[in-house]
Amino acid sequence: MAAAVDGEEEKEQKLEETLVQRVERITGKRAHPFLRRGVFFAHREFDKILDSYENGDKFYLYTGRGPSSEALHLGHLVPFLFTKYLQDAFKVPLVIQLTDDEKCIWKNISVEESRRLARENAKDIIACGFDITRTFIFCDFDYVGGNFYQNMVRIAKCVTLNQARGIFGFTGEDHIGKVSFPPVQAAPSFPTSFPHLFGEKRDIHCLIPCAIDQDPYFRMTRDVAPRIGFHKPALIESLFFPALQGESGKMSASDPNSAIYVTDSLKDIKNKINKYAFSGGGATIEEHRKNGANLEVDVPVKYLTFFLEGDEELAQIKQEYGTGRMLTGEVKGRLIEVLSGMVDRHKKARAAVTDEMVDAFMAVRPLPQMFS
Amino acid sequence: MAAAVDGEEEKEQKLEETLVQRVERITGKRAHPFLRRGVFFAHREFDKILDSYENGDKFYLYTGRGPSSEALHLGHLVPFLFTKYLQDAFKVPLVIQLTDDEKCIWKNISVEESRRLARENAKDIIACGFDITRTFIFCDFDYVGGNFYQNMVRIAKCVTLNQARGIFGFTGEDHIGKVSFPPVQAAPSFPTSFPHLFGEKRDIHCLIPCAIDQDPYFRMTRDVAPRIGFHKPALIESLFFPALQGESGKMSASDPNSAIYVTDSLKDIKNKINKYAFSGGGATIEEHRKNGANLEVDVPVKYLTFFLEGDEELAQIKQEYGTGRMLTGEVKGRLIEVLSGMVDRHKKARAAVTDEMVDAFMAVRPLPQMFS
Repeated sequence: MAAAVDGEEEKEQKLEETLVQRVERITGKRAHPFLRRGVFFAHREFDKILDSYENGDKFYLYTGRGPSSEALHLGHLVPFLFTKYLQDAFKVPLVIQLTDDEKCIWKNISVEESRRLARENAKDIIACGFDITRTFIFCDFDYVGGNFYQNMVRIAKCVTLNQARGIFGFTGEDHIGKVSFPPVQAAPSFPTSFPHLFGEKRDIHCLIPCAIDQDPYFRMTRDVAPRIGFHKPALIESLFFPALQGESGKMSASDPNSAIYVTDSLKDIKNKINKYAFSGGGATIEEHRKNGANLEVDVPVKYLTFFLEGDEELAQIKQEYGTGRMLTGEVKGRLIEVLSGMVDRHKKARAAVTDEMVDAFMAVRPLPQMFS
Repeated sequence: MAAAVDGEEEKEQKLEETLVQRVERITGKRAHPFLRRGVFFAHREFDKILDSYENGDKFYLYTGRGPSSEALHLGHLVPFLFTKYLQDAFKVPLVIQLTDDEKCIWKNISVEESRRLARENAKDIIACGFDITRTFIFCDFDYVGGNFYQNMVRIAKCVTLNQARGIFGFTGEDHIGKVSFPPVQAAPSFPTSFPHLFGEKRDIHCLIPCAIDQDPYFRMTRDVAPRIGFHKPALIESLFFPALQGESGKMSASDPNSAIYVTDSLKDIKNKINKYAFSGGGATIEEHRKNGANLEVDVPVKYLTFFLEGDEELAQIKQEYGTGRMLTGEVKGRLIEVLSGMVDRHKKARAAVTDEMVDAFMAVRPLPQMFS
């Protein structure tokens, strides 16, 4: 793990079952499957967010996405589906950062193309069902400036080049755009970056749901926060969503068979899962019946763990499959059903998202619903 | 001299007498004393700006200031006085960047204090007499964003960390705010950073009057320009304005006796010049009468070269003083008159600058007068 800015060792904490139960108690809602099943498995001071929430203090949610490809895959949806649950459960405002600048900085993508992709991605995000009365979506290329830029500078002043190299691994051959970026991702952690939402209030906590690979950015942010007069943002962090080929594979836009996209057809989904989803089942039926499947490496089971609604059915599949009574083909068949339904619902929801709705979510405006 | 981004050796050119004459011919005006007397002594492609101007092509002026202290000294006025002359002579739009972010980044100054200083400095700048119908003044903390930020990213992508270290001397202990800054100073060199002035037009040249110490920023900018589809900005560069203690001294806010400030009283001016202005006169009257003054090191003569209006009187003083017929006290007396008048006029002009005028110059608006 990368070094923190101030050198203080700070490790993320495991998200214990007791904390999940506490969330259920506070929100009066069943916890999201991602919480119950350990998809969001780690946190930093999420417990403190709950403490202060119970004390009547305010917090907001911040998540985001680097819009690098036109179509999102299912892994991209994970933080958004979970953030929607948090927003609904806690009734809090949410800011969603689309780092079109980041993608232009890291990839060979023009400013114009990055901005276009950001708007396309915004439609997929809106299709996840966010509440427009509590949600502000912004693209960096449009929104960076003013108070947000002022916070970027405050943050940048607290991080030396050596520290940035330690955290992000920059080399001398990297361009300075990369070195300039971490404060852009850090700034939304501080409420004054959104004067239209929070005015000049500094005493509002921020909770960031994100995948574990974003941790270095926010360790940096947490180290900087008290030095510039803000609360440290809290984090709730998820596992990586595995590639179809398994944990060792990487979902990659250059290999469309490494992931299920929200644009895939039923036929694509069927074909990809049957053909590419790494199976932990036995090499032969006989072997499988005898030893059962290795659930630790089985991708269909992992995907079902993310997306199958019923806990009981999931437990049953694991039991039956793990002991060899259920075959890989059957598990894949159920996964195809689940994902087809999910992709189908997403497609319908996305088709209903108009450009006007994107503009409305992105309007720099006070939110009609805030903390209630 | 620092290395250029692309390693191409490119040296600034001497601003020859023939070029000054050409300026007079084109503008139908006597050249500014700063041009006639070699205060602005170097350039990069200023001749090409004149070529294209004569061909009916458009250019705009860009200059700026880092607002580090409340009161400006006379040296600070030099680029602005000269830029005003250029604006009047060529009838072109002008953008003035107040790098409040730079000063916050480099000095131990808060965002709020930097912004306050920028507005105070804007009043001194406006007092130089800029034409509001052709002038847009902006502070980075307010203006960075949108198209400007997009150009910052385009620029940053073209400069590696190694190149930035070569040009600006950054070390690992420097914070990343410093590394992020050069694109901020570069961006105003490109017309699309000002969509309210130039729309999306890329085919507009930029001429930057500045002191020679800003050259590294703009060498970097010139190297980057063609790679992102812009003209290289042209430069016209001045000598440093010397400290009262002479070329070896440095004007410093921590030593108020090192410079004449636009806020100094007549008594201050008299006292500073008589007491601190380094004299090239002889050690004794006898010696002075015999050998004359060393004009190369004499600060009163240098200051008169900047600010005395009459060429003939200047020549006469140099002649008389250089041959020992005129004494240091007499030269200093004349300088006190000149500077007192200048400071007095500035004070009156500045007192007439209201906050509303500052707002008006800083309004993001189309300029009523552009190229005519």
